[in-house]
Amino acid sequence: MTTDAPLVAPRGLKGLIVADTEVGDVRGREGFYHYREYSAPDLARQRTFEDVWYLLFEGRLPDGAERAAFTRETAALRGLPPTLLDALPAIARSETVPLASLRTAVSQLAALEDMPPVYDADPATIRANALRICSAVPVLVAALHRCAAGRAPIAPRPDLPAAANFLFMIDGAEPDPAHARAIEQYLILTIDHGFNASTFTARVVASTGADLGSAVVAALGALSGPLHGGAPSRALDTLDAIGNPERTDEWVRDAVASGARIMGFGHPVYRTADPRSVLLREIAESLGGGLVDFAGQVEVTIEKVLAELKPGRELHTNVEYYAGVVMELCGLPRSLFTPTFAASRVVGWCSHVMEQARDSAIIRPSARYVGPPAPVPVPDGG
Amino acid sequence: MTTDAPLVAPRGLKGLIVADTEVGDVRGREGFYHYREYSAPDLARQRTFEDVWYLLFEGRLPDGAERAAFTRETAALRGLPPTLLDALPAIARSETVPLASLRTAVSQLAALEDMPPVYDADPATIRANALRICSAVPVLVAALHRCAAGRAPIAPRPDLPAAANFLFMIDGAEPDPAHARAIEQYLILTIDHGFNASTFTARVVASTGADLGSAVVAALGALSGPLHGGAPSRALDTLDAIGNPERTDEWVRDAVASGARIMGFGHPVYRTADPRSVLLREIAESLGGGLVDFAGQVEVTIEKVLAELKPGRELHTNVEYYAGVVMELCGLPRSLFTPTFAASRVVGWCSHVMEQARDSAIIRPSARYVGPPAPVPVPDGG
Repeated sequence: MTTDAPLVAPRGLKGLIVADTEVGDVRGREGFYHYREYSAPDLARQRTFEDVWYLLFEGRLPDGAERAAFTRETAALRGLPPTLLDALPAIARSETVPLASLRTAVSQLAALEDMPPVYDADPATIRANALRICSAVPVLVAALHRCAAGRAPIAPRPDLPAAANFLFMIDGAEPDPAHARAIEQYLILTIDHGFNASTFTARVVASTGADLGSAVVAALGALSGPLHGGAPSRALDTLDAIGNPERTDEWVRDAVASGARIMGFGHPVYRTADPRSVLLREIAESLGGGLVDFAGQVEVTIEKVLAELKPGRELHTNVEYYAGVVMELCGLPRSLFTPTFAASRVVGWCSHVMEQARDSAIIRPSARYVGPPAPVPVPDGG
Repeated sequence: MTTDAPLVAPRGLKGLIVADTEVGDVRGREGFYHYREYSAPDLARQRTFEDVWYLLFEGRLPDGAERAAFTRETAALRGLPPTLLDALPAIARSETVPLASLRTAVSQLAALEDMPPVYDADPATIRANALRICSAVPVLVAALHRCAAGRAPIAPRPDLPAAANFLFMIDGAEPDPAHARAIEQYLILTIDHGFNASTFTARVVASTGADLGSAVVAALGALSGPLHGGAPSRALDTLDAIGNPERTDEWVRDAVASGARIMGFGHPVYRTADPRSVLLREIAESLGGGLVDFAGQVEVTIEKVLAELKPGRELHTNVEYYAGVVMELCGLPRSLFTPTFAASRVVGWCSHVMEQARDSAIIRPSARYVGPPAPVPVPDGG
């Protein structure tokens, strides 16, 4: 029987390598992550969102002409089909979290676009579907936000880059260039991050040969989970709850004593500072203002108290903490924080779906039955 | 470094145990599968769909009073919210495969119902969400089917059991009891089947703490993949292509020579007859008619030729083959075959989500980066 001994995965598949990828990687102990062969924070410092999107899809950075063509190509894919535009008020009116509305809207978009199963589709078709979804998601996020407030969506402006256009569609004003660049850098920083649960979900769905839309819709569902993407606004809620930097020490000790998780601190992979947090703090500081000073003071105190109360745990700010500060400073309402995260991560999901589509093996694990021994005779109906 | 050697999963996670479950199991070599401690085909022979649904959700079969209460409870949950009813024609009008429409409709239903993250929800709320989705999916399937043809949906009849009501909603006629029972048995047989890709998808999404609706929507996407659920009508297409039993031998040899897969034959887990196929053939034979005789003749010939051309592969009819025959005999149009499969499998998905919700570990594996070494300095913008 020993040759038949089943292989048992670690709980939650933690640390288990389930695929090879050329998209990127996270090196937790080094506090480093990359897209293709480039440091992701360096890309965020030096490049546009479209450059990095191109890098993820094509495997290399664009030259000037390629960037211009790609920016035009994606800007032209922002318009929504009339059927979907008509449906948005009803989708948004459900008054749930916008990620659930976004899930419905993306599902309908993919259906209206007749996205074919990746099983049958050629790479050019899958790429076209991916460009369409990635171009449309920010438009859907802004439009659903406005519809939920009973306002009409604002048509996208093809002359604006993705990040600036996103801010424009929220309130119809040409955004402050510093805000547009800050959001662009945030978007670049959150495109991809290893084999997180939503990325893995997208790849499992794609491995069945399903269409790219099904994979993205599934990933949106995973991202909505509180253990995954559902948190950037909660770090700000923590700042609100603290209210005053001098209360931080007491607040943290109370929170730790009561067993509460401190939102915005700690990461399952990083054992040093989260490199996304490092750059986002710089961006927040460059924007300036009272919230940044307050957040900085609270960060110092919380890290000090956590180091004392949970020695050796290396709890630093994660991406959520300064992402929330940056988005707040740029005028994004908190209900849009997670959907904005989705608007960049969709580029990562699609990159992974395109890679998964080149692999013919369905992802189909096993489980161990631990219930009562079977079979027992079925008793006669009661 | 040896202590740090990463654990690498088999390709497609094949055979890897990723969870413990009490829902059921498949024993491929024995040609046996079960729900809880009961043989699934025995349940299909002896019990109602509601009985087995109750078994999956509650962990035991109902007595007479419990069955009556559960049947009433679920029948009362069939009605659709007016917002969703209004949206169905636009969702159906997209003229894609109904599974993409169903994905959108279920997503909107879950949003309208404000399903909370399973992370925060108590078991009673998760169960209520699951009952709602499982009760509504057959209604949505029938309504979308009618809307796609420009017809008005037919309101569900609370006095009919799930299977009979499903057939009633498709054309508004009280179904032949033999047809209703045949479809009921098909539905029972397909509720659950091990850790297939859609079930695993649902559990990955639930492991992030997301709501039950997100998990079901994701699973629907996985089910739409041609390597998973997208096939029951293709087996009938094969029968159409053969046209005449005497052509079978030649047709199969040509298909095998050209490298084509023979739809309806072979299964990744079963090495003997698929136990679902065995009972579905019995059901088809009890319904009778020319199609059954034809399918039986073709089955004998194909199995004989495959045994000769692919010795040792043990290629027998799988669930698709006679499922297609049974659904055709009961008057279901082929475009409804996979959505009908979804209408039963959703009970399995929800059972797994309820089980997963009791586990606090997010499912988050790793990948191995195999691209060019990183980091390389980011070149200046082109």
